[in-house]
Amino acid sequence: SRFEYVKQFEREHHLLPDTYIVIRVDGKGFHKFSEEYKFDKPNDLRALQVMNRAAQAVMSQFSDVLMAYGDSDEYSFLLRKQCSLYERREMKLITMFASSISTNYYYYWNEEFPEKPLKQSRLPNFDARAVTYPNFSLIRDYFSWRQVDCHINNLYNTTFWTLVSKGGMTPKEAENKLIGTVASDKNEILFSQFGINYNNEPEIFKKGTILMREMTQEESEVNESELSSRQKQRIEKKRKKAEIKTYHEDLITNENFWTSRPWLSL
Amino acid sequence: SRFEYVKQFEREHHLLPDTYIVIRVDGKGFHKFSEEYKFDKPNDLRALQVMNRAAQAVMSQFSDVLMAYGDSDEYSFLLRKQCSLYERREMKLITMFASSISTNYYYYWNEEFPEKPLKQSRLPNFDARAVTYPNFSLIRDYFSWRQVDCHINNLYNTTFWTLVSKGGMTPKEAENKLIGTVASDKNEILFSQFGINYNNEPEIFKKGTILMREMTQEESEVNESELSSRQKQRIEKKRKKAEIKTYHEDLITNENFWTSRPWLSL
Amino acid sequence: SRFEYVKQFEREHHLLPDTYIVIRVDGKGFHKFSEEYKFDKPNDLRALQVMNRAAQAVMSQFSDVLMAYGDSDEYSFLLRKQCSLYERREMKLITMFASSISTNYYYYWNEEFPEKPLKQSRLPNFDARAVTYPNFSLIRDYFSWRQVDCHINNLYNTTFWTLVSKGGMTPKEAENKLIGTVASDKNEILFSQFGINYNNEPEIFKKGTILMREMTQEESEVNESELSSRQKQRIEKKRKKAEIKTYHEDLITNENFWTSRPWLSL
Amino acid sequence: SRFEYVKQFEREHHLLPDTYIVIRVDGKGFHKFSEEYKFDKPNDLRALQVMNRAAQAVMSQFSDVLMAYGDSDEYSFLLRKQCSLYERREMKLITMFASSISTNYYYYWNEEFPEKPLKQSRLPNFDARAVTYPNFSLIRDYFSWRQVDCHINNLYNTTFWTLVSKGGMTPKEAENKLIGTVASDKNEILFSQFGINYNNEPEIFKKGTILMREMTQEESEVNESELSSRQKQRIEKKRKKAEIKTYHEDLITNENFWTSRPWLSL
Ligand SMILES: Nc1nc2c(ncn2[C@H]2C[C@H](O)[C@@H](COP(=O)(O)OP(=O)(O)OP(=O)(O)O)O2)c(=O)[nH]1
Ligand SMILES: Nc1nc2c(ncn2[C@H]2C[C@H](O)[C@@H](COP(=O)(O)OP(=O)(O)OP(=O)(O)O)O2)c(=O)[nH]1
Ligand SMILES: Nc1nc2c(ncn2[C@H]2C[C@H](O)[C@@H](COP(=O)(O)OP(=O)(O)OP(=O)(O)O)O2)c(=O)[nH]1
Ligand SMILES: Nc1nc2c(ncn2[C@H]2C[C@H](O)[C@@H](COP(=O)(O)OP(=O)(O)OP(=O)(O)O)O2)c(=O)[nH]1
Ligand SMILES: O=P(O)(O)OP(=O)(O)OP(=O)(O)O
Ligand SMILES: O=P(O)(O)OP(=O)(O)OP(=O)(O)O
Ligand SMILES: O=P(O)(O)OP(=O)(O)OP(=O)(O)O
Ligand SMILES: O=P(O)(O)OP(=O)(O)OP(=O)(O)O
Ligand SMILES: [Mg+2]
Ligand SMILES: [Mg+2]
Ligand SMILES: [Mg+2]
Ligand SMILES: [Mg+2]
Ligand SMILES: [Mg+2]
Ligand SMILES: [Mg+2]
Ligand SMILES: [Mg+2]
Ligand SMILES: [Mg+2]
Ligand SMILES: [Mg+2]
Ligand SMILES: [Mg+2]
Ligand SMILES: [Mg+2]
Ligand SMILES: [Mg+2]
Repeated sequence: SRFEYVKQFEREHHLLPDTYIVIRVDGKGFHKFSEEYKFDKPNDLRALQVMNRAAQAVMSQFSDVLMAYGDSDEYSFLLRKQCSLYERREMKLITMFASSISTNYYYYWNEEFPEKPLKQSRLPNFDARAVTYPNFSLIRDYFSWRQVDCHINNLYNTTFWTLVSKGGMTPKEAENKLIGTVASDKNEILFSQFGINYNNEPEIFKKGTILMREMTQEESEVNESELSSRQKQRIEKKRKKAEIKTYHEDLITNENFWTSRPWLSL
Repeated sequence: SRFEYVKQFEREHHLLPDTYIVIRVDGKGFHKFSEEYKFDKPNDLRALQVMNRAAQAVMSQFSDVLMAYGDSDEYSFLLRKQCSLYERREMKLITMFASSISTNYYYYWNEEFPEKPLKQSRLPNFDARAVTYPNFSLIRDYFSWRQVDCHINNLYNTTFWTLVSKGGMTPKEAENKLIGTVASDKNEILFSQFGINYNNEPEIFKKGTILMREMTQEESEVNESELSSRQKQRIEKKRKKAEIKTYHEDLITNENFWTSRPWLSL
Repeated sequence: SRFEYVKQFEREHHLLPDTYIVIRVDGKGFHKFSEEYKFDKPNDLRALQVMNRAAQAVMSQFSDVLMAYGDSDEYSFLLRKQCSLYERREMKLITMFASSISTNYYYYWNEEFPEKPLKQSRLPNFDARAVTYPNFSLIRDYFSWRQVDCHINNLYNTTFWTLVSKGGMTPKEAENKLIGTVASDKNEILFSQFGINYNNEPEIFKKGTILMREMTQEESEVNESELSSRQKQRIEKKRKKAEIKTYHEDLITNENFWTSRPWLSL
Repeated sequence: SRFEYVKQFEREHHLLPDTYIVIRVDGKGFHKFSEEYKFDKPNDLRALQVMNRAAQAVMSQFSDVLMAYGDSDEYSFLLRKQCSLYERREMKLITMFASSISTNYYYYWNEEFPEKPLKQSRLPNFDARAVTYPNFSLIRDYFSWRQVDCHINNLYNTTFWTLVSKGGMTPKEAENKLIGTVASDKNEILFSQFGINYNNEPEIFKKGTILMREMTQEESEVNESELSSRQKQRIEKKRKKAEIKTYHEDLITNENFWTSRPWLSL
């Protein structure tokens, strides 16, 4: 029609080829969401399972995702360097990830919490962003960044809620007590006042959750650009069928975790 | 932490100020979605209601949306020119709209179709995009574009499915019959072969659905930049409380529809 | 060749259609440039003429430029809303303007200053940027912004150099004297201490320079989109042949300056 | 002033960190430029020297440029991965390169061609673009791309002009004769009809020109991010003082050319 010219105002951003894409989703206003649905404090194991199952479903849906890492209300998905999903159109990628994590969260919420149906006034929404990284060393630093963040938040939240629930403090008092404290101070508070050894806290809380699409050495694409299109399809099929495994490990110091999975950087 | 530098790789796009923003969402693979959940053909009234109720919910959530138009598996939301939601960050805007339409669709689906629970393997997902338009004349052409598209698709689908369901044709036969036909041909087929006057088809199918946030003349922002911040807040409140009404009218020829709502272009 | 794929890494930004484009160029390090070539202080009339003649040449070269405004080492060029030069590719536009103003500056420098040949170690370079504006009211504010800036700088520089050259102050002393002063203070210093009435300073210093491509009423494109391509070509020809006139007027208060040139906003 | 808000419409693009930046400049309309100033055909050695000297000047001005390659009216500059010039703002980078190559071309033109002063109606202008590449293998392919292009053009132009000047053909006849020919055909024409061995043509025509900022092994930044700021300054100084050498070598097959300069990829 004579109105079609308005489509020309659309602007597309194709993410730079040959770079790793990280898509991070984060729950919108989960401070209130967790209150509304009465999450356990500081960590609600079932709510974490909802996130993890939803993220795993996203990863199953998009076979370009090689690994994912999440904690609290967020998840980061690593897409392989050669990914050409939606021709790397940024808007398509991030809106599809935002939509998919949201509906999968909805779905698994109903499974985990049949007794707490979601209300229209407080549905689980997620923003999403895509970031490109030119080399794999940056990718390792990226996941280290998120895991350090998980650790800092969890140590704080654990100490804070212990002071409140076991120490009888008001939230305000607990907050004041923690101002200016460093990690060792918080460990000390937990241990000396409450006999809690933070190291013994569940790994899922301390380290977050890692989802790995487990390939085998020989499935590694040696050099995508040198593969025939039939070889590419074969690898693509392997990726689709590959098992997705769950870990709660240290990504920062565990060199072997990365080196044993050479396909991640290809 | 020493890893925080990786956040510097994030790139932000702030949509040009003082332009109208249109956010269009479109169902992902609704061809298959509509088959999976056995939509009526060519139009499933209840499925349309799910879309319309979900879109209305999005509009309630984001008070910067002044009107919306939708048909089939898509909806377009018009955000006012002065909108500063998320500082006009494109990624935040489109991912939040994609997420919100998706979870609201989920919610209202359960209300409309309690007998057809959504399966994890086929959840309702939507992509989203933002487009900026520098003047209101373009906005009118934009909505005309979408409504013409609705009309063309609906006339085709109505004729196609009539040929199949009432004319006993196979889909392939019907498709062949319609190749090269123009609008009047299809009207003629419907009328002479099946006694159907296309004009009498339901308006919701022919025109799509318009959602209007109904303000009053005096609530129009005369010139946002000249208002005090208290006046702005007062208008913002009015927008939040304004009723959202539903129409199935012609947007292309109905001049009055636009001129009677001067606040749209402010 | 098999290497051509590297071109796919190029990213293009097409400026939003139907918006006014302003391209501003600014001399790189003209603080030093003006010292190297011993510009008169605070204003070197011949150096200004070099800028003005160079800008006029740029405007002659690019017929989409409707007006330009400049002072000191900068110039802003207004491109008409319907401009499709280089398909509105931002990189092409800004690099061509940067290049053209630079070589024209070089050319007219040699004309104005035959006794001061440019040295390789200090050539006249300009950066450039493109900014899009969705309506003409913003364009008027844009030029007002630049003219106010010219005024503020010129009043300061005039007072400063008067204090130094006629008042016998060191630059440091003059600077200190002017700290915290407002416009009226500076006018007062000039008048009471040196008998200088700032209002009588040359208009070119106080107001900067405006270059206008002078069309006539009937040459105004009534509505570009409704013109036949022959009509468009005719207008394009008129633009190419139109005289470019020079003014040193007040753009902020002189309403008539704008309203008498309706083609600017078309 | 109250007009300053218009600056908010400016949009900045910061090039992705940790990627190689290539800035390619290309003469605007050099088909006509070379006719206007009567370049030798197919290659004007002095005109090439103007380009090469101008490019060398650009490289001296911007110490982040590690190498450059040029032929005909174009030059490509490689900026080191860690370059933070103008905070990697794309518009600043490309407009400054466009401006600098233009004025340096002007300057060296006057040196090489004192008898052919540049006319205002035909000044040497260049567009420029920036492209980011995430790894060095792409950079090698980039320069291979440009060098293959140089080869293809030069073989064509050499044969074409030989057919015209020595073979007495009209340009149209020469063009027709070359349609559908491959490299070996052109070599054959040159050799059998004119006794010209293309291999003996000057290297500068066949290979183009490479400018290398020659560092030494130990000056290589081992890992920029691990260097103290004093070490960085020391290396920066070395870069500034490093000699820029000129080559006309094969970049595609000459592995050693690259491996002997490890600093290029750091
Ligand atoms: N009680 C409880 N709260 C949780 C749990 N997981 C996440 N949350 C809450 C704590 C935080 O307030 C919030 C996540 O922090 P964010 O920085 O993402 O903030 P929020 O989502 O409120 O705002 P945003 O929309 O992301 O800017 O979610 C949990 O397992 N238990
Ligand atoms: N039977 C039936 N189908 C519908 C109805 N509304 C939408 N659909 C189907 C028909 C179309 O195949 C599809 C919408 O067309 P699209 O162009 O959006 O295609 P689709 O969503 O399959 O692919 P996409 O992911 O958007 O590229 O949805 C309905 O009421 N009844
Ligand atoms: N003496 C003298 N100086 C002038 C004249 N016109 C411009 N200038 C100098 C004064 C300023 O230092 C400089 C223009 O200011 P800018 O803010 O553009 O600074 P500059 O070009 O040095 O740095 P930039 O590369 O633009 O960031 O040019 C003139 O007519 N006479
Ligand atoms: N006779 C002669 N011509 C040359 C020489 N070097 C370059 N040229 C001319 C031949 C080509 O027509 C032109 C370069 O080709 P381009 O593809 O860059 O085209 P041109 O600059 O005309 O257009 P453009 O503005 O870049 O799209 O410059 C030379 O040494 N001798
Ligand atoms: O749906 P369109 O026609 O606006 O086009 P698109 O979404 O940009 O592309 P596609 O749906 O084909 O992915
Ligand atoms: O809107 P915010 O504050 O969450 O902004 P953000 O860009 O999402 O920041 P972050 O990555 O810290 O959530
Ligand atoms: O010169 P090219 O081939 O890189 O292409 P472009 O400069 O993007 O386009 P053109 O020269 O045709 O304007
Ligand atoms: O590099 P600068 O500081 O001149 O930065 P800018 O974006 O050019 O700023 P301005 O418009 O003030 O010259
Ligand atoms: Mg956030
Ligand atoms: Mg959150
Ligand atoms: Mg969070
Ligand atoms: Mg689509
Ligand atoms: Mg769809
Ligand atoms: Mg659709
Ligand atoms: Mg500046
Ligand atoms: Mg300057
Ligand atoms: Mg300046
Ligand atoms: Mg080109
Ligand atoms: Mg060229
Ligand atoms: Mg060229």
